Amino acid sequence: GAVKVLCGPKNVVVERTLTSSGVFLLQMGWGDLGAFGEPSKETPNLDQMAAEGMLFLDFYTASPLCSPSRAALLTGRLPVRNGFYTTNGHARNAYTPQDIVGGIPDSELLLPELLKKAGYTNKIIGKWHLGHRPQFHPLRHGFDEWFGSPNCHFGPYNSTERPNIPVYRDWDMAGRYYEDFKIDLKTGEANLTQLYLQEALDFISKQQASQQPFFLYWAIDATHAPVYASKQFLGTSQRGLYGDAVREIDDSVGKILKHLQQLGISENTFVFFTSDNGAALISAPKQGGSNGPFLCGKQTTFEGGMREPAIAWWPGHIPAGGVSHQLGSVMDLFSTSLSLAGLQPPSDRQIDGIDLLPVILQGQLIDRPIFYYRGNELMAVRAGLYKAHYWTWSNSWEEHGKGIDFCPGQSVAGVTTHTQEEHTYLPLLFHLGRDPGEKYPLSFASEEYQQAVEHISGLVQQHKATLVPGQPQLNVCDQAVMNWAPPGCEKLGKCLKAPESDPKKCSWPH
Amino acid sequence: GAVKVLCGPKNVVVERTLTSSGVFLLQMGWGDLGAFGEPSKETPNLDQMAAEGMLFLDFYTASPLCSPSRAALLTGRLPVRNGFYTTNGHARNAYTPQDIVGGIPDSELLLPELLKKAGYTNKIIGKWHLGHRPQFHPLRHGFDEWFGSPNCHFGPYNSTERPNIPVYRDWDMAGRYYEDFKIDLKTGEANLTQLYLQEALDFISKQQASQQPFFLYWAIDATHAPVYASKQFLGTSQRGLYGDAVREIDDSVGKILKHLQQLGISENTFVFFTSDNGAALISAPKQGGSNGPFLCGKQTTFEGGMREPAIAWWPGHIPAGGVSHQLGSVMDLFSTSLSLAGLQPPSDRQIDGIDLLPVILQGQLIDRPIFYYRGNELMAVRAGLYKAHYWTWSNSWEEHGKGIDFCPGQSVAGVTTHTQEEHTYLPLLFHLGRDPGEKYPLSFASEEYQQAVEHISGLVQQHKATLVPGQPQLNVCDQAVMNWAPPGCEKLGKCLKAPESDPKKCSWPH
Repeated sequence: GAVKVLCGPKNVVVERTLTSSGVFLLQMGWGDLGAFGEPSKETPNLDQMAAEGMLFLDFYTASPLCSPSRAALLTGRLPVRNGFYTTNGHARNAYTPQDIVGGIPDSELLLPELLKKAGYTNKIIGKWHLGHRPQFHPLRHGFDEWFGSPNCHFGPYNSTERPNIPVYRDWDMAGRYYEDFKIDLKTGEANLTQLYLQEALDFISKQQASQQPFFLYWAIDATHAPVYASKQFLGTSQRGLYGDAVREIDDSVGKILKHLQQLGISENTFVFFTSDNGAALISAPKQGGSNGPFLCGKQTTFEGGMREPAIAWWPGHIPAGGVSHQLGSVMDLFSTSLSLAGLQPPSDRQIDGIDLLPVILQGQLIDRPIFYYRGNELMAVRAGLYKAHYWTWSNSWEEHGKGIDFCPGQSVAGVTTHTQEEHTYLPLLFHLGRDPGEKYPLSFASEEYQQAVEHISGLVQQHKATLVPGQPQLNVCDQAVMNWAPPGCEKLGKCLKAPESDPKKCSWPH
Repeated sequence: GAVKVLCGPKNVVVERTLTSSGVFLLQMGWGDLGAFGEPSKETPNLDQMAAEGMLFLDFYTASPLCSPSRAALLTGRLPVRNGFYTTNGHARNAYTPQDIVGGIPDSELLLPELLKKAGYTNKIIGKWHLGHRPQFHPLRHGFDEWFGSPNCHFGPYNSTERPNIPVYRDWDMAGRYYEDFKIDLKTGEANLTQLYLQEALDFISKQQASQQPFFLYWAIDATHAPVYASKQFLGTSQRGLYGDAVREIDDSVGKILKHLQQLGISENTFVFFTSDNGAALISAPKQGGSNGPFLCGKQTTFEGGMREPAIAWWPGHIPAGGVSHQLGSVMDLFSTSLSLAGLQPPSDRQIDGIDLLPVILQGQLIDRPIFYYRGNELMAVRAGLYKAHYWTWSNSWEEHGKGIDFCPGQSVAGVTTHTQEEHTYLPLLFHLGRDPGEKYPLSFASEEYQQAVEHISGLVQQHKATLVPGQPQLNVCDQAVMNWAPPGCEKLGKCLKAPESDPKKCSWPH
């Protein structure tokens, strides 16, 4: 079908066919791409994507951890609203391990559910991470197709205390990691990214053949520990196995974009590349990436934990070589994709994402804050170039003593604290232009401090006054809900016996 | 005139007119350019220069401090050979403050001296820094013209204990900083970069008009504390005053390159942009730049102190958008410029620079190590992706206790040490591909360690066996040699009375 939308300057109506969307999401740091200053410069395809599209330098995820970020992307809402957080402890990161009882609530409206109304076919390839019990299945939440897994590819497990993670083909399990989908932890070899690439190419071909608009969520995780790459990429990077995985992803992105061009639908497909959290520095140097000049990494609300590489690509619409300083969020991909489909976001709930099309097509800058949450706590807020920390915490002394370090080689007194430090009444303020590394808090006595904090505190008051937290989904864990017998296990002879139910509060140490 | 040189594949002789060279040198960090991942991305002209030319990602200076680096660039030789070091203490950085007695020895052959033989006209604009006593004057060492100062633009001084630094026009002083050449330390305003830009444009025009090959050494220092910018650039950067200075430099570089193009000589002019040391993190955040993902900064032999932004530009010769991982050095600009002029480097002495033309024009990678010296000590050596530290030191506890920190916010146990730690028999080894931030020394027991260290130790033995240290020039200081009465002071009525000579050992705390 064809829709008319206003996407040029005032009074200019541009006619275009319905636009498809694709999102690439993975665990990668801001500094992992050549275009963002990675010194080995091994991402020619992503760099080319940036050169043909628009680079976002101030783009954020909604949580320093995977599950909440992904829930935020697909709902356009902060995890504290959509339930992807825990109240078991203060300011704790939580996700969806195998024994999690919760998942994405039915009351949440996911992007693919809404896109269906505009005739879209929706596919997720890769890690879902919004709950693995039957009611949370992605095909119950708007997706038409799925190839991938509900949880991280941890393992191998012994199938008695813990089953290996299933890989789904649509409704049913197609096998399990380490059993049917091999990952060689010693060599790092696994051909999963190639499988995910082929799935993407096939899906796009099929939609193009049937003239269907589509939404493809390519949620691969080769750069998540245990990091893996296909044989042909092993040993090809200066950066070790992590770099091999990045190279394979880069190569795959290049092939997907080229495929869109060869099918003649690149001008009808909006593609966005970003990440769900900063590089996991605890896995460095062999299994972790780079957050460039930023402080700390995954699990923290410093820039290294939440500022993400981001590229928008849409030939013929986005001017080549664009750069934007718009404060952006993964939640904006929800609103932007709806806008591309000619749909309005739901009006019965708070949506945190904004439509980035005016930014992308007309170079506008939209004034909006970024909220940095860790679990149930608003840790920090960015407005313009100022970032105010209301709470600081890296991780506990107890964890740190065990060698778990979210800020290896970095230590900023009073900032990368190992106790949860409250700064509500005198927030720590940084100017991210002069000090992107969050090393030099502004003087409380300065006029600059007082003006910026006054402004940000107003935003915080407004935010908190209207906040209706969702029912926390990540509080309860139970061995019985693990992936013992996913649908389809009978056909494969892979059903395992679940232990008796024994629900407990999940333990979230950081 | 026209010369024939071999600069294509074997058997292809390319005829070209004599090529001019330009070098931009200033104090800037690896991470200060958009093309190198600076998050404000405010260097469109330098980024464009990189897009049209070749980006060097593994390019080094010869010392983590200004004077020795500049002496190395102009002589093609390590400071320990050309005398730009001190033996007053072990592994101490030294430079040419006003009371330094030494300078560039007559026995050293400088690039402009050699280029003269090929008919070049040579000009230095900006900071000389190779000694300010009459025998060290740049016009006695091969330059035909000079506009700039012999020392850093520190001040203002009271003219009794210490005179203000002179600015020279060729042989004579044209005035002094803070008196005739204003720098407003409060606002950061100074129009010096504009003066230096106009000098460059005029010089290039004049050489083009007279069909003369030229060598222009544009050694500005607006990004050296006290940082300054012209009024039109003040407040224009997200990064504060330092960013304003970077923007003005970026704008100036763009104007110079455009001027070459407009004069029709860009294809006959080889231009190189780089820095004499890493960003001075002690001056951050208001007066210091960024070393991107690297460890520490100026004064140290970690990557942040010596890895530099570097761009080669030569339209019609260098393929656009090139990237090189060649281990390069500022000393290579000596050999490369000679090669461009059809000259051979001197054969009566050790030259440390290599000719980069095969790298730039044919994409070759030349196997060569990088030696990281601090004063009289070889601190570290890089070969391929491995870097071995034979000594580690940031600065002393005593200095650190006074708040002088060369690694703010960074601390790597056993690496950023505050005592001079010797590792001669078990060097600390890093793999700079997997670990560009020098955070994870390789295990001594690993095969990888043993192979890499064996290789590097061979290079060190060879280097030390043939090393003939020069007479150290930076040992003696004397108030009497300061810029009391530079040539030309009479005409300006600016001669000051020198105190009596009282030579002492200079104090080099780090």
